[in-house]
Amino acid sequence: MKLKLMGYLLLSLALLTSFSASAQFAKPEDAIKYRKSVMTVMGTHFSRLGAMAQGKVPFDAKQVVENEAVVELTAKLAWAAFPEGSDKGETKTKADVWKDPVKFKEAQDKLLSESLKLNAAAKSGKIEDLKTAAAAVGGACKNCHDNFKDK
Amino acid sequence: MKLKLMGYLLLSLALLTSFSASAQFAKPEDAIKYRKSVMTVMGTHFSRLGAMAQGKVPFDAKQVVENEAVVELTAKLAWAAFPEGSDKGETKTKADVWKDPVKFKEAQDKLLSESLKLNAAAKSGKIEDLKTAAAAVGGACKNCHDNFKDK
Repeated sequence: MKLKLMGYLLLSLALLTSFSASAQFAKPEDAIKYRKSVMTVMGTHFSRLGAMAQGKVPFDAKQVVENEAVVELTAKLAWAAFPEGSDKGETKTKADVWKDPVKFKEAQDKLLSESLKLNAAAKSGKIEDLKTAAAAVGGACKNCHDNFKDK
Repeated sequence: MKLKLMGYLLLSLALLTSFSASAQFAKPEDAIKYRKSVMTVMGTHFSRLGAMAQGKVPFDAKQVVENEAVVELTAKLAWAAFPEGSDKGETKTKADVWKDPVKFKEAQDKLLSESLKLNAAAKSGKIEDLKTAAAAVGGACKNCHDNFKDK
């Protein structure tokens, strides 16, 4: 019985490892390249929302929806791309990501929850809602960058 | 069936158009950085689908859905990021993108229509469907890279 249990345990560990492996990166530099790419895509679309919120370009409810969808999805993606060992190389990520994972997780969760408000604002189609939500998302970006990214 | 296919095609064309309309890059290098980032994100998630389709990692219907959503969205994004003048700099994009826009558009549309089949495969949750759709999307990637990207 104990042997069987041990067998199951080993099997589930093996499965877990392969699943994580599929969600991970072959090399630390792959993770770094990927997370920078995710941030570039997120930043590009968020800046378009920001430009509309600030009245720099005309408000367009359809474009808000499109750009918001990209921000919302990319806001979920980068967090799997900070494996141990990816603190070296072409990256500005601070060691605090690995030293204080609880605080880093809080920063991620803040972005995720604020991006859901952005979704609600996109659905409402009102520029006032966009202004409020974009400011909140921008705050979440800044909070994380201030704490976890070198200048 | 033909009508359904035509519906998909029209939908992808509509999406393509709307994303192009929202395209705004201050400098050609911004467009280059953005399109490379989109491709990195798309490639990362598509390779995870490919690994499952090829049996290199265990098939997981939930992960198929998650990765497919990223591939499907990013497959729409890059095409607005090939403005005139972005042929110079840190890019492997061939001049044919601007010399033969009709052919380039066809290559984009092929990826978009194949990625919608990938969506159907993700919904079916069957590995055989994933294999077929992933091969078709991979063919669309290769077709575009062969014609429009330097080695």
